[in-house]
Amino acid sequence: MGYTDLDTRAVNSIRILAADGTFNSNSGHPGAPMGMAPVAHVLFNKFMKFNPKNPSWLNRDRFVLSNGHGCMLQYALLHMFGYELSIDDLKKFRTVDSITPGHPEAHDTPGIEVTTGPLGQGICNAVGLAIAQAHTAATFNKDGFNLVDNYTYCFLGDGCLMEGVSSEASSLAGHLQLGNLIAVWDDNKITIDGDTACAFTEDVAKRYEAYGWEVLHVGDGDNDLESIEKALKAAQETKDKPTLIALRTTIGYGSTQQGTHGVHGSPLKADDIKQLKEKFGFNPEESFVVPQEVYDLYHKHAAEGAAAEEEWNKLLAKYAEKYPKEHADLQRRLKGDLPEGWEKSLPTYTPADPAVASRKLSETVLSKIEAVIPELIGGSADLTGSNLTRWKGATDFQPESTGLGTYAGRYIRYGVREHAMGAIMNGLAAYGTLIPYSGTFLNFVSYAAGAVRLSALSQVRLIWVATHDSIGLGEDGPTHQPIETLAHFRALPNCMVWRPADGNETSAAYYVSIVSKHTPSIIALSRQNLPQLEGSTIEKVIKGGYVLHEVEGAQITLVSTGSEVCICVDAAKELAEKHNIKARIVSMPCFEVFDAQSKEYRLSVLPDGIPSLSVEVMSTMGWERYTHEQFGLNRFGASGAYKDVYKKFEFTPEGIAKRAIATVDFWKDVPNVRSPINRAFQQLI
Amino acid sequence: MGYTDLDTRAVNSIRILAADGTFNSNSGHPGAPMGMAPVAHVLFNKFMKFNPKNPSWLNRDRFVLSNGHGCMLQYALLHMFGYELSIDDLKKFRTVDSITPGHPEAHDTPGIEVTTGPLGQGICNAVGLAIAQAHTAATFNKDGFNLVDNYTYCFLGDGCLMEGVSSEASSLAGHLQLGNLIAVWDDNKITIDGDTACAFTEDVAKRYEAYGWEVLHVGDGDNDLESIEKALKAAQETKDKPTLIALRTTIGYGSTQQGTHGVHGSPLKADDIKQLKEKFGFNPEESFVVPQEVYDLYHKHAAEGAAAEEEWNKLLAKYAEKYPKEHADLQRRLKGDLPEGWEKSLPTYTPADPAVASRKLSETVLSKIEAVIPELIGGSADLTGSNLTRWKGATDFQPESTGLGTYAGRYIRYGVREHAMGAIMNGLAAYGTLIPYSGTFLNFVSYAAGAVRLSALSQVRLIWVATHDSIGLGEDGPTHQPIETLAHFRALPNCMVWRPADGNETSAAYYVSIVSKHTPSIIALSRQNLPQLEGSTIEKVIKGGYVLHEVEGAQITLVSTGSEVCICVDAAKELAEKHNIKARIVSMPCFEVFDAQSKEYRLSVLPDGIPSLSVEVMSTMGWERYTHEQFGLNRFGASGAYKDVYKKFEFTPEGIAKRAIATVDFWKDVPNVRSPINRAFQQLI
Repeated sequence: MGYTDLDTRAVNSIRILAADGTFNSNSGHPGAPMGMAPVAHVLFNKFMKFNPKNPSWLNRDRFVLSNGHGCMLQYALLHMFGYELSIDDLKKFRTVDSITPGHPEAHDTPGIEVTTGPLGQGICNAVGLAIAQAHTAATFNKDGFNLVDNYTYCFLGDGCLMEGVSSEASSLAGHLQLGNLIAVWDDNKITIDGDTACAFTEDVAKRYEAYGWEVLHVGDGDNDLESIEKALKAAQETKDKPTLIALRTTIGYGSTQQGTHGVHGSPLKADDIKQLKEKFGFNPEESFVVPQEVYDLYHKHAAEGAAAEEEWNKLLAKYAEKYPKEHADLQRRLKGDLPEGWEKSLPTYTPADPAVASRKLSETVLSKIEAVIPELIGGSADLTGSNLTRWKGATDFQPESTGLGTYAGRYIRYGVREHAMGAIMNGLAAYGTLIPYSGTFLNFVSYAAGAVRLSALSQVRLIWVATHDSIGLGEDGPTHQPIETLAHFRALPNCMVWRPADGNETSAAYYVSIVSKHTPSIIALSRQNLPQLEGSTIEKVIKGGYVLHEVEGAQITLVSTGSEVCICVDAAKELAEKHNIKARIVSMPCFEVFDAQSKEYRLSVLPDGIPSLSVEVMSTMGWERYTHEQFGLNRFGASGAYKDVYKKFEFTPEGIAKRAIATVDFWKDVPNVRSPINRAFQQLI
Repeated sequence: MGYTDLDTRAVNSIRILAADGTFNSNSGHPGAPMGMAPVAHVLFNKFMKFNPKNPSWLNRDRFVLSNGHGCMLQYALLHMFGYELSIDDLKKFRTVDSITPGHPEAHDTPGIEVTTGPLGQGICNAVGLAIAQAHTAATFNKDGFNLVDNYTYCFLGDGCLMEGVSSEASSLAGHLQLGNLIAVWDDNKITIDGDTACAFTEDVAKRYEAYGWEVLHVGDGDNDLESIEKALKAAQETKDKPTLIALRTTIGYGSTQQGTHGVHGSPLKADDIKQLKEKFGFNPEESFVVPQEVYDLYHKHAAEGAAAEEEWNKLLAKYAEKYPKEHADLQRRLKGDLPEGWEKSLPTYTPADPAVASRKLSETVLSKIEAVIPELIGGSADLTGSNLTRWKGATDFQPESTGLGTYAGRYIRYGVREHAMGAIMNGLAAYGTLIPYSGTFLNFVSYAAGAVRLSALSQVRLIWVATHDSIGLGEDGPTHQPIETLAHFRALPNCMVWRPADGNETSAAYYVSIVSKHTPSIIALSRQNLPQLEGSTIEKVIKGGYVLHEVEGAQITLVSTGSEVCICVDAAKELAEKHNIKARIVSMPCFEVFDAQSKEYRLSVLPDGIPSLSVEVMSTMGWERYTHEQFGLNRFGASGAYKDVYKKFEFTPEGIAKRAIATVDFWKDVPNVRSPINRAFQQLI
């Protein structure tokens, strides 16, 4: 309280920086920053705890700009508070190789927690950050050691509220009673198509109350800093509910076009900026100027944050004395390192072991490693018994009042909310103390495509346990049988797609997924049983592709993944016995990892001289990169017992043998068959 | 009202058929059918208007089972009311090539309106069906001719309500005041993971009220047929709001395990079925038996439906006399045919015409054809001004009370709800009188992946106007720049992905999309300007791929799409002038359509003898099918002016020429270079 002209000046400095930044780049969104500058000022300068000199301090408050197109707001704040983001960086807004891209990207810019812009994602990331905080506090805080007590703040606009993914996450956040989560809705009544009256007339406040949120209202978000402060204070004090503050603002406040969609996605005109600066008492001849008294004000708050961190470091030092084990665990997690020797817990198999569905093999891995990797936090989108994602004796992550678990619990009941699950995992991973994994059917990872893409772009470590990975799921039929899904995610940069063929391959898939600090993984797992293969070892599998079965004088290489590898083994027998054709077999559980091997290694797996045939019961798209011929399914599947479905589409030893014969025959006249590994030039990466 | 034992017997017949069907197949979901049998009985026998002998009667009431896993309920009803679905078909439930697959599929089974199962989709389809009804009524009904006045009914479960896509569509349905939409929520408190208390504790009724729905409650959905009838009646009478009936039921009612998730997704045990039949007064030794009196009851209602259709046909005949033009238009639409000569409205271009962004070329197409194809109904997910999807002078589809449009309007303001937009389009297309198209950025079609998949599977005609189709969108940066998107949808069966290079290609893309009655299309369009190419004609383009520029003695084929084709033209000049290399150029705007051409034609486009290089600024995945070498972007893009971004990644004449030279060099020692069109065997399709 007690706001002065200095506060107004600070607010207007933000507004003007946003106008200057977008004008200078002739691109971007000035409207939201200008409208939200007041709440940003109050939040950052009065409430938020952070140290610009150390953006990775664990107990900092987290801020998420879900309406990421308004990122000039965030860049302006980061600059003004003293993060490593200069005026020059603001001038390079939206130019190639700047740290101020068109939407906030977590891995590039100090102070950006998560990558936002695709609408609806940020609020879900915030839910993930809030879950992570609650869980980390429940795990590490001790009497007298409130190590972790930060809040997560999120700004979001009408667009975020319209997106279904935010509905999913908000419903879950209400259920989970996340009192540490405070969202501010920029209620400006404007979207790109014009007035919200044209498509968005629901009662948002009532909807959020229905989710179990506290909803507060601020009538004049343009000027009434005191009411904003009061609302934020009340939100902080609500401990058993997330809070939505409905903040009535004017988009592009100060512009001659304020309150219209004209200021949403286009820079202000020169004369508009001129009148804006004059109106706010700034020099219209100058650009990118922050008054020194505003810098001073903000740097003072930043210094308080630095001091708070110092205090916290002292607390942490005492914690280290009293709780050395917990302290060491926390420090290790924050570095992203794994406990030494954890990989010894990974199960291995021999061909004598029984055939098991790879979803079940995945359950065994999780059950073995959960004790040695305490930062693993699991869940499922309401398919726990099918995905087999919950180890025996796991505690659910639930508010105590439900009687169903505690915040220390490591298993999240996401409900039937795949997209939010993916976006929440991005938040969980971004917090710094956790490695999330979650289950659904492979086919429904597609529901979360928007979130998976951001996992890859923002380089977070997390795992999708994607069971029922093919027509092999059988009776549920084509609506549930993936065809295009692997091709989709294999085409996504920085995303590992694994499809293990047996127990050792499943262990290896988890191994690589867990040691890859900056890459998300999707592990595709079978519903049906798979035999333990002769020739698979973790050491071989972690190369992404390897020779499962070598044979001298081979005439063809069969290349396969997952549940089709064992059928290829039988097909090779059939070819040898009935057709006198020698086939070697390659298992290729992960394209991305195979691609990262040396060319020499890759050519040893897929050599020159003989043709190759890929076998996978889904789209052949992408397999042409590795093999000469492809046997797959470029149509939808069928509902029926899985063996009947495989038979219908000829994924049998005979069906494979037939195509192998055709392949050998077709390529026999070509001298020196060239492996597809040979390329005329390197791809850009 | 006045329910008797016969009604109870009918209800129990449904329950027992569901138990028998899932038991016989040892697969499926008996719980929901057994719990919803009472409401299904009242709805189908007392309210719904349909003629089993003609499932495509326009004015039938539509029924959507959004919780599609409960499809034994729907199959049982279809059988009992006399659709072409026999007891034998019920016995073949979930077996290969049956018409009773694991989830309802619209194209296979008479009486199934839309394909459901992936949760949340059905209720959105229902919103689409309801919009289509309102629009068709507003377009064709006349004083005294209430040709179209059907309702759309939808059953949905907790899973559907948790999915964000249903939130999006429900919010829009409330805004649109769709009084013709009646949804029944199977409030059974059970999901796969157990009690809804573990993840779904929001106040659903309050949320739907917030959306602007009427919400009614039935406390005993297991037995209280009178209250069910009352609620349905009240719902019908609410004309300016959709209605949600919250129906409290017991999942698996009658089973010894009723009310638990044990009956959700697994058949009942033999002894459980035995006690069920005994309890309900059925012979426990018999299976798949419907009492004759129940058949009689239902066939009587079916006969009433047939009579109603006959009455309607008479009305239609009179309508034909009085409104011959409208009648002819309606009949034509129902056949899926297009107005004769419509294609003459498609604009054509010559190289003298100015360079234009293909999103703008798309706008021109829409503006030209909207008048001749009145069944086109457009929209955008709040990006109208960017997607350019709204022709000048279009009327919005809005309730009159908003003052923003009318139900006769042909432009839908979807709001920022891509996934619902896709699923609603599936419903619009399924109604039978409309061809929907909608806009968003290509990158955000991925948000709707679940719906797009069902468009393809259920073989509906609709168009995604997917603008800002590459890194060429520039400043918005990697969060908005598609990389994997085309590969994803190209891998999806029965989905056309178009990426036109100029005006003639854009017209051709629309041409094929509109004449393809059973295939959805995605048209990827540029933000940046593209020149009109020498050599493009609609006739060539409709083959999916064609020779844009032939040259005698060519040493390489450059194959490209969209905005890169014109850069290839410049690269070919560069190659000829500076490097003495002759390059021919192929434009390949649509893989799927090209694949459907004769092998002879395809080989004429991509001939043997010389190597080929594909050029497309996104994932190279899939291009190996057509070309020997690939130049693409297997990494995320960058934020900056589009020319800078293209330059950064070397998508320039020089960058292409460099790789073409490498390609020629790499392949020069290979005798008789074989075109990738040659294959050892045919794919299954």
